[in-house]
Amino acid sequence: MNDARNSSAFPASPRVVVLGGGFGGLLTARGLAKAKARVTLIDRRNHHLFQPLLYQVATGGLSPANIAAPLRSLVKGQANTEVLLHEIAGVDVKRKVLFADDGSEIGYDYLVVSTGAGQSYFGNNQWAATAPGLKSLEDATRIRRDVLLAYEEAELEKDPARRKALLTFVVVGAGPTGVELAGTLAEVARRTLAGEFRSIDPASARVVLVEGADRVLPPFAPQLSEYALRALTKLGVEVRLGWKVTHIEPGRLELQPVANKDAPVEKLEAANILWAAGVEASRFGRELATATGAEVDRVGRVKVGADCSVAGHPEIFVIGDLAHFAGADGKPLPGLAPVAMQQGRFVAKLLRRRLAGRDEKTEFSYLDKGSMAVIGRRMAVAQMKSLRFRGGIAWLAWLFIHLMYLAEFQNRVLVLFQWAWNYVTRNRSARLITGDLPPRAEAPAKPS
Amino acid sequence: MNDARNSSAFPASPRVVVLGGGFGGLLTARGLAKAKARVTLIDRRNHHLFQPLLYQVATGGLSPANIAAPLRSLVKGQANTEVLLHEIAGVDVKRKVLFADDGSEIGYDYLVVSTGAGQSYFGNNQWAATAPGLKSLEDATRIRRDVLLAYEEAELEKDPARRKALLTFVVVGAGPTGVELAGTLAEVARRTLAGEFRSIDPASARVVLVEGADRVLPPFAPQLSEYALRALTKLGVEVRLGWKVTHIEPGRLELQPVANKDAPVEKLEAANILWAAGVEASRFGRELATATGAEVDRVGRVKVGADCSVAGHPEIFVIGDLAHFAGADGKPLPGLAPVAMQQGRFVAKLLRRRLAGRDEKTEFSYLDKGSMAVIGRRMAVAQMKSLRFRGGIAWLAWLFIHLMYLAEFQNRVLVLFQWAWNYVTRNRSARLITGDLPPRAEAPAKPS
Repeated sequence: MNDARNSSAFPASPRVVVLGGGFGGLLTARGLAKAKARVTLIDRRNHHLFQPLLYQVATGGLSPANIAAPLRSLVKGQANTEVLLHEIAGVDVKRKVLFADDGSEIGYDYLVVSTGAGQSYFGNNQWAATAPGLKSLEDATRIRRDVLLAYEEAELEKDPARRKALLTFVVVGAGPTGVELAGTLAEVARRTLAGEFRSIDPASARVVLVEGADRVLPPFAPQLSEYALRALTKLGVEVRLGWKVTHIEPGRLELQPVANKDAPVEKLEAANILWAAGVEASRFGRELATATGAEVDRVGRVKVGADCSVAGHPEIFVIGDLAHFAGADGKPLPGLAPVAMQQGRFVAKLLRRRLAGRDEKTEFSYLDKGSMAVIGRRMAVAQMKSLRFRGGIAWLAWLFIHLMYLAEFQNRVLVLFQWAWNYVTRNRSARLITGDLPPRAEAPAKPS
Repeated sequence: MNDARNSSAFPASPRVVVLGGGFGGLLTARGLAKAKARVTLIDRRNHHLFQPLLYQVATGGLSPANIAAPLRSLVKGQANTEVLLHEIAGVDVKRKVLFADDGSEIGYDYLVVSTGAGQSYFGNNQWAATAPGLKSLEDATRIRRDVLLAYEEAELEKDPARRKALLTFVVVGAGPTGVELAGTLAEVARRTLAGEFRSIDPASARVVLVEGADRVLPPFAPQLSEYALRALTKLGVEVRLGWKVTHIEPGRLELQPVANKDAPVEKLEAANILWAAGVEASRFGRELATATGAEVDRVGRVKVGADCSVAGHPEIFVIGDLAHFAGADGKPLPGLAPVAMQQGRFVAKLLRRRLAGRDEKTEFSYLDKGSMAVIGRRMAVAQMKSLRFRGGIAWLAWLFIHLMYLAEFQNRVLVLFQWAWNYVTRNRSARLITGDLPPRAEAPAKPS
């Protein structure tokens, strides 16, 4: 039995269900604004999240609401579109229904799956609780809290070894997120917190960036990686290239050189260990693959055809980080916002045509506009085809492009204003510790 | 053994410990910037919170960081001042030490206690889990989440009775906070969410404001209460005057007329019940009273003398919501930000003089600059001595004064901008649901 709700509102139209309100899903839904279809956008969050700026929330530069917008607001002008807050547990591709968390069934005629990717711990999922990744607002506010609490605890700590561990921050993985986190943590230590403590010197904090490859930002051109390494070092980040993490437990981790498995492990005490090392496609991908017989790759992405549809199921599309789409060079397209956005627009256009009865064959091709990463104040790298930029120019380009992409105008101005303020004052105003204080070592008997 | 940390930094100076970083404590600490003293500001939060605007966070108009500022930032320019993140468990007034949560002792020569007040449930503390009050950022983001989730659940709900309960919001207590919450919830339902849902009409939401007295805003002049009642009614709030709450459980509450204890109770189904009915002084007040022999009043406030000190302890001061300071009319001063701020400045000045060796007698007197409450867009009330304002003028005055009071310049501009934006667009952009989705009714068996 298909879900009959709303059928009175859009009686005759086919139903397009879009799963996931990230870049891919949102652009699909928006592209269907005028399609002859009932569009249902489903997400387990009520907001679209601008993930590339999550690290700024984690480090107190921006507020969660600055980089997120309610999905309902974003599509409220589309009379044919509804938003449902659901976690989806499974799919029956024969009956064309999704199973929601409350047991209801949601029927579809076309299904666009864009549920993205999460953190991968390479088989060590027990590390997740100790070394959080940076994928959601909850992750970001948790990291913000833990990082700020470490300084607060250090200010109160009398044992030098424990104090040192509190002031050690380890970031695992030197891709764009890891570099941005490590660079910003170093700036927080040396600039933002300067003069705010009396017993500790925040600038003495140690920020360690661990990377298995032989350079930071491996997807970038070698000379940009070299620049980024110099910039990180200048900020005081200790970069460990060619090292991998072999063990993580609360307050402690172990490293080993990648090239020498017989080398003794190095132990490091650190209150904060942040994970930016790997991604893994979201779980629903495997559900879908099982149901459709589609192939999944090593990290759980669903292989799709030239039109982003799943083999044998022209009515099911997978886009964004969840999709394994073979690029021109045969390698899968990277998990970047522009890929998801372009695929969302493409699938929306394809569906618009198909719904209008024009079912011509069409293929997605990715227009690579380049990629960029920020390291710190006036320090960034950018590459566009054969062009390479670095330093202040790349940083300005980064600022400009990220502002342009922010989904809502208000956020754009708020973010611009806060960036300008942070830049001038070197302050970061969203430095809130919320939630209860963690339990502390118990008191010696209180005299009565 | 007194805490000897920092003694090298400020060797000869007496130590002033300020407990609580609210309006009273912050103004005390700032007033001691140039005093010949070691100043220690202790709070269990890392931020100063502008409580009068909490209801705007609870209703998605502002972000938490917009109304909070790190205490360290606020006093970083004062070389004689340190900030410690501690929960204080007790005090020994003979030895002049505070006991911290980690077992450490913090010695003082002068102690200023400004730990404020929390919610009072009039002996029904079991209601607290179901009917949250609005005292902290955690309260505000919880209420924001619960209110927004109710609309999301209602959009998915097929049972009309359950849907109605999800769209019923009850606010208990019609003081300024209750009126502001109820008015804003009504605006959210009728304006902010208009056009965003497909199965429900948010404007059909029922907002009920329950008050035991015979008018809203009891501390205000009767004609302002009448205006506020008309304004609330115009916004669609259902005001129940002369009713009290006799029972609360998840999803349900019971009301009874205050004047007739034999009347049958009225039952109300409501997913959201918000508590704005009573305040109770923070627990540390009773610790302090027990230790010093000071009197506490019915709501746990510590009675203080004309110079805000505790009887028999000229070195201990209690200010703000925690203090019972008899005003000119013999009644205690109200728990308002201006009282705490003026007392903080007064105590700082008294201590500056005493530390400089000039120990003349001095008495605090409260300069009542009036009070105000906002009901909705262009609807507010204000009274200053015999002057009364209402409507758009009072609303503009409210805006102006609250912006002036916000502690940090950046917040001021950000808040102004967001208010202007919200006013023009009738949108509220900080509408985030964060945290996991609550468990839902389990699914009928999934076909395989």
